[in-house]
Amino acid sequence: MSEPYKPESDSSLEQLTPEQALEQADAEDEFDAELAASAVSELLERGDREAIRRWFEETLAADIAETLALLDPEKLRQAMKLLEREERARVFGYLPLPLQVEALAGLTRAEVTDLFNRMSADERADLFNALPESEQERLLPTLAQAEREDLRRLASYAEGTAGSIMTSDYATLAPQLSAREALEELRRVAPDKETIYNAYVVDEERRLIGVVTLRKLITAPPSAKVADLMETNVVFAYADDDQKEVAEKIARYDFIALPIVDREERLVGIVTADDAMDVAEEEATESFQRSATVGPLEVSVKDADVALLYRKRIFWLVLLVFGNIFSGAGIAYFEDTIAAHIALLFFLPLLIASSGNAGTQAATLMVRALATGEVQMRDFFRMFLRELAVALALGLTMAFAIYWIGLWRGGQEIALVVGLTMTVVVTVGSLIGMSLPFLMSLLRLDPATASGPLVTSIADVAGVLIYFGMATLVFRHLGG
Amino acid sequence: MSEPYKPESDSSLEQLTPEQALEQADAEDEFDAELAASAVSELLERGDREAIRRWFEETLAADIAETLALLDPEKLRQAMKLLEREERARVFGYLPLPLQVEALAGLTRAEVTDLFNRMSADERADLFNALPESEQERLLPTLAQAEREDLRRLASYAEGTAGSIMTSDYATLAPQLSAREALEELRRVAPDKETIYNAYVVDEERRLIGVVTLRKLITAPPSAKVADLMETNVVFAYADDDQKEVAEKIARYDFIALPIVDREERLVGIVTADDAMDVAEEEATESFQRSATVGPLEVSVKDADVALLYRKRIFWLVLLVFGNIFSGAGIAYFEDTIAAHIALLFFLPLLIASSGNAGTQAATLMVRALATGEVQMRDFFRMFLRELAVALALGLTMAFAIYWIGLWRGGQEIALVVGLTMTVVVTVGSLIGMSLPFLMSLLRLDPATASGPLVTSIADVAGVLIYFGMATLVFRHLGG
Repeated sequence: MSEPYKPESDSSLEQLTPEQALEQADAEDEFDAELAASAVSELLERGDREAIRRWFEETLAADIAETLALLDPEKLRQAMKLLEREERARVFGYLPLPLQVEALAGLTRAEVTDLFNRMSADERADLFNALPESEQERLLPTLAQAEREDLRRLASYAEGTAGSIMTSDYATLAPQLSAREALEELRRVAPDKETIYNAYVVDEERRLIGVVTLRKLITAPPSAKVADLMETNVVFAYADDDQKEVAEKIARYDFIALPIVDREERLVGIVTADDAMDVAEEEATESFQRSATVGPLEVSVKDADVALLYRKRIFWLVLLVFGNIFSGAGIAYFEDTIAAHIALLFFLPLLIASSGNAGTQAATLMVRALATGEVQMRDFFRMFLRELAVALALGLTMAFAIYWIGLWRGGQEIALVVGLTMTVVVTVGSLIGMSLPFLMSLLRLDPATASGPLVTSIADVAGVLIYFGMATLVFRHLGG
Repeated sequence: MSEPYKPESDSSLEQLTPEQALEQADAEDEFDAELAASAVSELLERGDREAIRRWFEETLAADIAETLALLDPEKLRQAMKLLEREERARVFGYLPLPLQVEALAGLTRAEVTDLFNRMSADERADLFNALPESEQERLLPTLAQAEREDLRRLASYAEGTAGSIMTSDYATLAPQLSAREALEELRRVAPDKETIYNAYVVDEERRLIGVVTLRKLITAPPSAKVADLMETNVVFAYADDDQKEVAEKIARYDFIALPIVDREERLVGIVTADDAMDVAEEEATESFQRSATVGPLEVSVKDADVALLYRKRIFWLVLLVFGNIFSGAGIAYFEDTIAAHIALLFFLPLLIASSGNAGTQAATLMVRALATGEVQMRDFFRMFLRELAVALALGLTMAFAIYWIGLWRGGQEIALVVGLTMTVVVTVGSLIGMSLPFLMSLLRLDPATASGPLVTSIADVAGVLIYFGMATLVFRHLGG
């Protein structure tokens, strides 16, 4: 992250002035942050602040943030100072947290205070929590009373809860207002609110009693009462609910925002749809990583260093090795059978891989279905029976295919053993793969852990034991 | 899907009247669709339509849809007729497409026409496309001219493009309007529009020249001109862009909706954030399934039947078996070495599994990073070098662990072979796993295909060859 930005090829810049490069970066179908970053970098070196300011004005905050993130820390701080105050607060919201801390270092005390007062409540709380304690203590007294209390309250919710991702910049209305008065009120508070498209109706104790959309207020007769316009069947979440539940509710009901209440059902915040989308993205990435038995990375894969990746991967690798010692022991146990029929070895990788592959397929389908809520614990029995049918069909097909290779490599008996084994290992592997995610769910672990390597390792052990067990049995009976 | 709904346990219903059950289903933190469905089912049997109507009135469309989806087709059709027309159109939007077709069968011609006129443009087009051709031809003449043309236009975009998920129910404004006039216009058109929170400013040729938010219009002085209030740096997508790009832009810029233009930059539709969220969810599920080399399922995993699952899984299973024949051939090639040192077999599963596990970890990290755009093709070389460092560290750690087991099971020489092999296979497996997603990307395939079974199978072959090759070499030199 601290590597200074170096453009990989300067060819495009050689033909373009920095101003032209910035124009081109904006004009492309997808914003070209690398091009923009090299142009901004050059303009900073030249000291042409005006050109940068002009570009800031006509560029979206998300694009500016991506550009600045590519600059080295010193230039990031210089560029940050050129941003107009309101826009700076917006750009901050799009920067990764470590870079926000970095950029803060270049601002004066007054600028930092101004920034904190302008940032949205949830982003402000995140940044505040990322600061070293000494910084926090220096900053707190400079903030307004309301912001201070807000910070303390938002910081009190545990990571991963609805409270930790909510913002307190929501608009409330009293039920007795008319539509005209309500619109007037929303117009008045709009500058400080994250959204005014949903307004929350609360009683004197701040208990949530309804929600009304700006659309409804605008299309209603001006004298209509908020109490009559509002939707009273309000969907909400508790501040200590899992953030995943919030994202699911917003997706399910197509909401712009979801109100968050405390255990006394008093409104304490809202989570907006765009924050929920970030959560959904994060959760999908974590699930994906867990499916490969990688510990959750707190930083982006691109920026993770060697030591971090090592730590996140070594635990499962070593653990799974010990699982495979059982496979080894299984093979050692059947050494006599193997020595007598060395042709069996040809089919070993193929049989245990098929068991693992079928298991991974079954596991992944269930992992995803459990994660999206499409399948529930109570569906286990039905899913198990269906998997049995699918797996038998798969196993028989593959047994048929492998039988002829067995005949060719080792004769009638080997073909029989290999065919039988294939049917059984594909079925057993599939059932293990399909059941493990349910077991993980039952143990309150992420079902994703049960796909990939874990299933493969367990299916391997089963495959070895079934194969050589089957071979020993068949050869004994056929006197081979 | 055609199974009639049977509650798994009636205990809750035995104590509750259906009316109480419905109330309880609504009151729980998460809506209890199964409880509601059994209550609605009982009320339908009793013929108590009034109770159902009352419940429909106070329940959200998404919850009604989930409940009705659990009823058998006959009851679904009965319940559908009890919905008030506007609400029915909303509920239809939340039903899975096959059930929409099912439910349509119970409505009269007039009701179908009314429904089609009320549905949002994108949902209407999806349903229309799902109908058999004869139905389509019967329906078309009953629709209004505008809806007919709309249907034809929306149906003309290929599956998976921005055009296929966009809606034509967007609000446009002329640049010369004042804020007051613009608000008046939005108020007028609101009932027919999917959103009025973003309004798109177009010139006489319908070319998109700006976007203005309702929030901006409400807070602006009433006489301010739209042309001065609008954002002119508009982010948009082309109708033939990939739907994934649309979802990414909406997530990146935190938009409520993204405008879609044709190649002449004329506005033809918008994609709303909630539709983009559905796309993101769909894409994540597909990626997940591809990572287990399962073909993309067009229906939910829960509803997929045995034959469909068989078809989606058999191709890769058989293909991967043939990959593993190389492993078998490798083993057969080294039969003499193995026969002379049968203790080597103990370590075979463990070594090839470690290669596959390390490969799966590396692959999954890259798959996800490539999918979210965090890592690009041009990062390959940097990622490769980092992976080399991580993999060597992992391999050496695991070699150290396995060395002692080698010493115990087979003595000095075996320990040496096993330790060396572990270092090499973990490194090679990791580098294969890390590179494959890039290769897939280069071939314009989904990188997700490169995680899981495919990586494991390739790593297996490499593992077998490295292991026994190393063993043959070491024993030859040490004269073992």
